[in-house]
Amino acid sequence: MESGDINFHTRKWVRPEDLNANGTLFGGSLLRWIDEEATIYAILQMGNGRVVTKLMSEINFVSSAQQGDLIEMGLCATKFGKTSLTMRAEVRNMITRSSILTIERIVFVNLDANGRPAPHGYTTVTYDRDRLPTHHIPAFPPQAQPQF
Amino acid sequence: MESGDINFHTRKWVRPEDLNANGTLFGGSLLRWIDEEATIYAILQMGNGRVVTKLMSEINFVSSAQQGDLIEMGLCATKFGKTSLTMRAEVRNMITRSSILTIERIVFVNLDANGRPAPHGYTTVTYDRDRLPTHHIPAFPPQAQPQF
Amino acid sequence: MESGDINFHTRKWVRPEDLNANGTLFGGSLLRWIDEEATIYAILQMGNGRVVTKLMSEINFVSSAQQGDLIEMGLCATKFGKTSLTMRAEVRNMITRSSILTIERIVFVNLDANGRPAPHGYTTVTYDRDRLPTHHIPAFPPQAQPQF
Amino acid sequence: MESGDINFHTRKWVRPEDLNANGTLFGGSLLRWIDEEATIYAILQMGNGRVVTKLMSEINFVSSAQQGDLIEMGLCATKFGKTSLTMRAEVRNMITRSSILTIERIVFVNLDANGRPAPHGYTTVTYDRDRLPTHHIPAFPPQAQPQF
Amino acid sequence: MESGDINFHTRKWVRPEDLNANGTLFGGSLLRWIDEEATIYAILQMGNGRVVTKLMSEINFVSSAQQGDLIEMGLCATKFGKTSLTMRAEVRNMITRSSILTIERIVFVNLDANGRPAPHGYTTVTYDRDRLPTHHIPAFPPQAQPQF
Amino acid sequence: MESGDINFHTRKWVRPEDLNANGTLFGGSLLRWIDEEATIYAILQMGNGRVVTKLMSEINFVSSAQQGDLIEMGLCATKFGKTSLTMRAEVRNMITRSSILTIERIVFVNLDANGRPAPHGYTTVTYDRDRLPTHHIPAFPPQAQPQF
Repeated sequence: MESGDINFHTRKWVRPEDLNANGTLFGGSLLRWIDEEATIYAILQMGNGRVVTKLMSEINFVSSAQQGDLIEMGLCATKFGKTSLTMRAEVRNMITRSSILTIERIVFVNLDANGRPAPHGYTTVTYDRDRLPTHHIPAFPPQAQPQF
Repeated sequence: MESGDINFHTRKWVRPEDLNANGTLFGGSLLRWIDEEATIYAILQMGNGRVVTKLMSEINFVSSAQQGDLIEMGLCATKFGKTSLTMRAEVRNMITRSSILTIERIVFVNLDANGRPAPHGYTTVTYDRDRLPTHHIPAFPPQAQPQF
Repeated sequence: MESGDINFHTRKWVRPEDLNANGTLFGGSLLRWIDEEATIYAILQMGNGRVVTKLMSEINFVSSAQQGDLIEMGLCATKFGKTSLTMRAEVRNMITRSSILTIERIVFVNLDANGRPAPHGYTTVTYDRDRLPTHHIPAFPPQAQPQF
Repeated sequence: MESGDINFHTRKWVRPEDLNANGTLFGGSLLRWIDEEATIYAILQMGNGRVVTKLMSEINFVSSAQQGDLIEMGLCATKFGKTSLTMRAEVRNMITRSSILTIERIVFVNLDANGRPAPHGYTTVTYDRDRLPTHHIPAFPPQAQPQF
Repeated sequence: MESGDINFHTRKWVRPEDLNANGTLFGGSLLRWIDEEATIYAILQMGNGRVVTKLMSEINFVSSAQQGDLIEMGLCATKFGKTSLTMRAEVRNMITRSSILTIERIVFVNLDANGRPAPHGYTTVTYDRDRLPTHHIPAFPPQAQPQF
Repeated sequence: MESGDINFHTRKWVRPEDLNANGTLFGGSLLRWIDEEATIYAILQMGNGRVVTKLMSEINFVSSAQQGDLIEMGLCATKFGKTSLTMRAEVRNMITRSSILTIERIVFVNLDANGRPAPHGYTTVTYDRDRLPTHHIPAFPPQAQPQF
């Protein structure tokens, strides 16, 4: 995977609460961090807070990390579908300079207020914040849960 | 994916702390839960506490869940390598009777006390606890971090 | 306490975040885990998501656990009242094969949508999922908090 | 239970992360809070950081609490054994003025550096801090886990 | 800062989940604890659950703490404005007898149901609970977020 | 405060677990996030993992945030002392385009392996990663806790 176009934003400092029982970074914490970061990226690119993860392609855990390491999460849009967005992800260990994991495709779907897939209207990546919603997005009411 | 052989053990009750900003089950919580459950299953099958996730194949998020739903996590060993174990995973919503996500292959590697891949000596699934370690497994010391 | 009839489902892998300041399993984490598991069991047996813990009999902390240990939680219905369910609980350390704690009686009460005790209609244990609610249970509105 | 002698110290503000799926205070959070508070009280009374919960008598969940309520936890030593301390506990809702739960007896055991019960040398309650350890207490090493 | 008038209530036992990567108390946990405690104090003094932190003056981190230490949080009202309350804060290490941090002024604002500053009507500190709200305070609806 | 030179990296998506009892962003979560981000920035600028927060100047809570909002944290070094680093911080709400809080000065101290202040050798900001440690930094041993 080429990571030339990937922008790294969110960083983490590995603390004891992030460790598994073997004393290395807990994989579950890692997946939690990348899922949140990917959601933020999807909101920025599709201009809508109502987005859901639909698919993650193969995840390779290339190396690990330990207490005190700094971790950064990177994402890059690779394809705009009519109601979806596909992105590439990489998590890196800033101390060891190693890749921690890579995911070739994470697919998000854009939903309307009733939880149904809806066109987002974009075909290219933005590096600005022109698509960012400017009003708060309410949670789905119980009767309009996502149907994707 | 056939789920006939999958055993479902750990269950969760979806509480507010598990929700994303849209009011549905946060994907990061889900991935954290399945990663912990898969590690426990790997320890039971390979008879060693020093195991690491090496790979997860494509994850399909088929449906979601909401506050108050009951979730259960299931796993099934599908292949024993010399130093690895491959398993199939499914997470189900007990209330809606829907599958939430499926992962065809999660691969774990068995490590020795120095963090290097080591043969586990098993070729078949156990339904007993005959392989379970009976002594506490210490964490890796800093100088012997996993090298896989 | 005979544990012959107890079914063990949910499992935990003791990680650093579960330890107390002495480096052993934090009792508060343990009580949190068994309370969630007991609630799930009560929902499955009484067929209703609106259940509350009413009483726990004496809790004996028989042994502890440490980082890396596997823990499992078990429950067994012992008495069906008109609006209540009594169960027996045991938490075990899968590594040391020791019991961690036992609770002879945990009593749950079944509530209606207004937070008042309501008959559940059952007198025997189910090993199936025939009682499981199939629709989402909304949280209590502020004006209908539990009165038990 | 008379609560005349109980001193209430630690307080909590019930936030969304403390709620169960029904929108009321999660019992597991409550038990976690009282266990931590009781441990602190035991350290102050027995003058030693190496203390473990041995027993909790019947817990009555008298009323609940909801988001925004203030909760306070109270404890009172009732008996000093040679190596143990027994205390009474009450958790109160400061908004509704109701008792939330009461526990007649929580028994803690005082341990030495090898994890074995050890005399604490006290027979009465202190309202000062004259027994408080003044040096940091290291965690138990793996080979000296509690044996009580 | 004189701490003569400061009342210390809430206590914490420093566990592994509260440590930073250097093995000492994580500053972020400390700030989280004091913010919750200050909010509880503000609710008790202004008699209203709808209060928000408006300002914290300089925070001096005088000493740290480590796993197993006991921490206590203290507050003291120093000034009642028409819609605000100013308080002084100190966090202490009960084991080392050292001050951990001091904050000369934390300012809270009292809000009405529409999220706007509102007079609280008090000019002096209460040591009773006569101002404590006796009814549950609902969260702000989305259309009435705080404007202070 | 001019924020021209501030670089914003880490982002958060406000979920239910981050809310206070009034349904807005919990100040304690906010302070926890900025403290972690400032520590990461200090490590990158001083080239050492053993850094501690020494002082935070006045914190102004300018506006709040609600569930579903995106938050970003920004920092900028403003002064290099012999053993210290001073930085300016701002937290912004990406949805409302409002500043959430600003901190004019956060001071970190660089420590040696014995927990004593040590010269870091830098006088200017780096935008590269040339100062980043390339080896893991072990936690302080109990006998060498920070003395600053």
